[in-house]
Amino acid sequence: MARIVVKFGGTSVANVERIRQAARHVKREVDAGNEVAVVVSAMSGKTNELVGWVNEASKFHDAREYDAVVASGEQVTAGLMAIVLSEMGIQSRSFAGWQVPIYTDDAHGAARITGIEPSTLDERLCQGWVPVITGFQGVSPHQRITTLGRGGSDTSAVAVAAAVGADRCEIYTDVDGVYTTDPRIVPRARRLSKISFEEMLEMASLGAKVLMIRSVELAMAQKVRLVVRSSFDDPEAPQLAPDGTPGIPGTLVCDEDEIMEKQIVSGVTLAKSEAKITLRDVKDKPGVAAAIFGALADRSIVVDMIVQNVSDDGSVTDITFTVPDSEYEKAVDALENNDSIEYAKIVGSKGGAKISVIGVGMRSHAGVASSMFRALADKGINIQLITTSEIKTSVLIDDQYAELAVRALHTYYGLDKKDA
Amino acid sequence: MARIVVKFGGTSVANVERIRQAARHVKREVDAGNEVAVVVSAMSGKTNELVGWVNEASKFHDAREYDAVVASGEQVTAGLMAIVLSEMGIQSRSFAGWQVPIYTDDAHGAARITGIEPSTLDERLCQGWVPVITGFQGVSPHQRITTLGRGGSDTSAVAVAAAVGADRCEIYTDVDGVYTTDPRIVPRARRLSKISFEEMLEMASLGAKVLMIRSVELAMAQKVRLVVRSSFDDPEAPQLAPDGTPGIPGTLVCDEDEIMEKQIVSGVTLAKSEAKITLRDVKDKPGVAAAIFGALADRSIVVDMIVQNVSDDGSVTDITFTVPDSEYEKAVDALENNDSIEYAKIVGSKGGAKISVIGVGMRSHAGVASSMFRALADKGINIQLITTSEIKTSVLIDDQYAELAVRALHTYYGLDKKDA
Repeated sequence: MARIVVKFGGTSVANVERIRQAARHVKREVDAGNEVAVVVSAMSGKTNELVGWVNEASKFHDAREYDAVVASGEQVTAGLMAIVLSEMGIQSRSFAGWQVPIYTDDAHGAARITGIEPSTLDERLCQGWVPVITGFQGVSPHQRITTLGRGGSDTSAVAVAAAVGADRCEIYTDVDGVYTTDPRIVPRARRLSKISFEEMLEMASLGAKVLMIRSVELAMAQKVRLVVRSSFDDPEAPQLAPDGTPGIPGTLVCDEDEIMEKQIVSGVTLAKSEAKITLRDVKDKPGVAAAIFGALADRSIVVDMIVQNVSDDGSVTDITFTVPDSEYEKAVDALENNDSIEYAKIVGSKGGAKISVIGVGMRSHAGVASSMFRALADKGINIQLITTSEIKTSVLIDDQYAELAVRALHTYYGLDKKDA
Repeated sequence: MARIVVKFGGTSVANVERIRQAARHVKREVDAGNEVAVVVSAMSGKTNELVGWVNEASKFHDAREYDAVVASGEQVTAGLMAIVLSEMGIQSRSFAGWQVPIYTDDAHGAARITGIEPSTLDERLCQGWVPVITGFQGVSPHQRITTLGRGGSDTSAVAVAAAVGADRCEIYTDVDGVYTTDPRIVPRARRLSKISFEEMLEMASLGAKVLMIRSVELAMAQKVRLVVRSSFDDPEAPQLAPDGTPGIPGTLVCDEDEIMEKQIVSGVTLAKSEAKITLRDVKDKPGVAAAIFGALADRSIVVDMIVQNVSDDGSVTDITFTVPDSEYEKAVDALENNDSIEYAKIVGSKGGAKISVIGVGMRSHAGVASSMFRALADKGINIQLITTSEIKTSVLIDDQYAELAVRALHTYYGLDKKDA
């Protein structure tokens, strides 16, 4: 017997029929003797409708009222899910954030969970009930409804799982797991059985939009094992892990220690439409980088890669960074109109693609970066920028070689499906 | 300076533009130096949508979950109203039932308000804020969301007005007041400036569907002065009472003592499609009426008029009552298939119309009933049944004379508009 928290996203509860389908997954787990708590998002499209009304009411609305309006969407799904489960013979009760309670700070619209009172949920679970909890929301110290920001339901699920000491937290979504790379680019992409939290964090931030970074961070910190799986699977089918053995379908995101055979590289990710900007002959002194990136932050420009090399003689250096193509002109303008930054000239171009290889195995295997560069060179692809972290190596290349590069690296690191 | 509770129904908050229009009424009162609290219904159509989903989820749903889902509609309107008011420069904050709190019993779906904690609202009002409260709902002793049943928002408004000691409770709706009779039947129907609670109760139950009976009963018990007025009036127009003098437009529903010149008759109401059923030669003994109407109640048939005359010799009597035309066959069947009721035969027919004249002045004026019968006789209209209460006389006549009868009585009692 296990204690499980399952979370259904917006597309998995888009209408009553989908809610019924989701409930059958819950029933399977209950019938197997497990204790199950459910966390739900709003029906897909509902949150957008509510946000639309708020913006129509006023462009400059109070965030407290935004939250009061927008949080109603999950309340509806939670009640409907409890009704559907009850009809299946499962004792179920819905709980809004304030009823659990899920305590948050009062940063309305982007609140952080500060604690969850486990006793109400724990009592229901022990009595064989299935509590259904509204995701995405909590209650502030001032007894106002708060929301956690977009994608916050994943975070709610992880936090609930931590609070009730769940064995795992299953995130049901519209994909059936985490892949070695984007299957639309590489048909032979494989679904991973397991991936470490650290790898998942790098994958998520690099465009594998399966899980919100924030929920993975929380899961890592709270040691909550996550499972990413599809709500569109047949709920009554035998439970088979991706390798065909009996187990849990989908991808388990867990502590590195739980992964016996570590892949050197677990995945290859791609982010397109990156513009690079270089400041030539920047004065090499303390505070220069802060001035440059402060000027960009003031204009709300998100910077991705940053590269600074050592200067020849300690006087001047070059700094290069990337921003989305759409922010290129704005970024150049921000730098040109800032007197506190000294440099010789700005050069740059749009149309770059960032390719990254990720894997905890890199820590213990030398030569991953150099073999990556070699694999790209073999295809005649020029590398414009390189950045590395402990478990990731990223390069910027010309956009037009992006898919070719991903396929080449995917094959090179042995990630291709065996039977395809 | 007055303290006012204003309530907007579903059609008055059907979309953001309507909410803005409603908010302008609130602003006018605030600008006049009044303390204002707002009670709102769900956007029209929303409650039906939510109820539809609940029924789709399960025909046999838990009432607690029905309430959790359905109560979300008012939460949305309250937040949007607070946002719109804030944009107009009025400090405003929304409150769901559980945040006030509005305490109810746990009769989910049809809960009764047991008390309202006034301190939160009172504090806001004293500081010049406009609290916006979700109508139709409260919180049970078990911290579950409850709803008061359809039309419960009027009741919420009256209860809030009583709790905060408001000078009056203004119900904004899609009509501009209470009329002497249905203006579609009698174009010369007049809007009443004032009407007593007792008269309003008789008017409401007889088909003038402006206010829910329950809210009028509560207003009478709590001595909350009610104003019925239109949210579609120009919010910036000078406030004129129905007689054209400066004051509050609409109809004031208040204690009888507040009405100086009492009309003998304040209104004429009509209910069509009434079927009459007579049981001939019913044994005149204790328990007979209980057996008859118990049999009907068991089939959920709502009986309207009931007439029983004294028997000639104390042995048998005739009992006549009316039910909606649509229930006629069901009612006859219920009586014919009940062995405990002894009678000679059942006779009846559909297609009756009940005409009532209502007025607290009847108490002190003799002859209202007889003059009513005379007025109908002058038009050649035969009276089939007569029932009376302290402030109301009703007759059943043939459906085809219904409009003629209403117009005749309206004129006879001097209710016609002077200038029409």
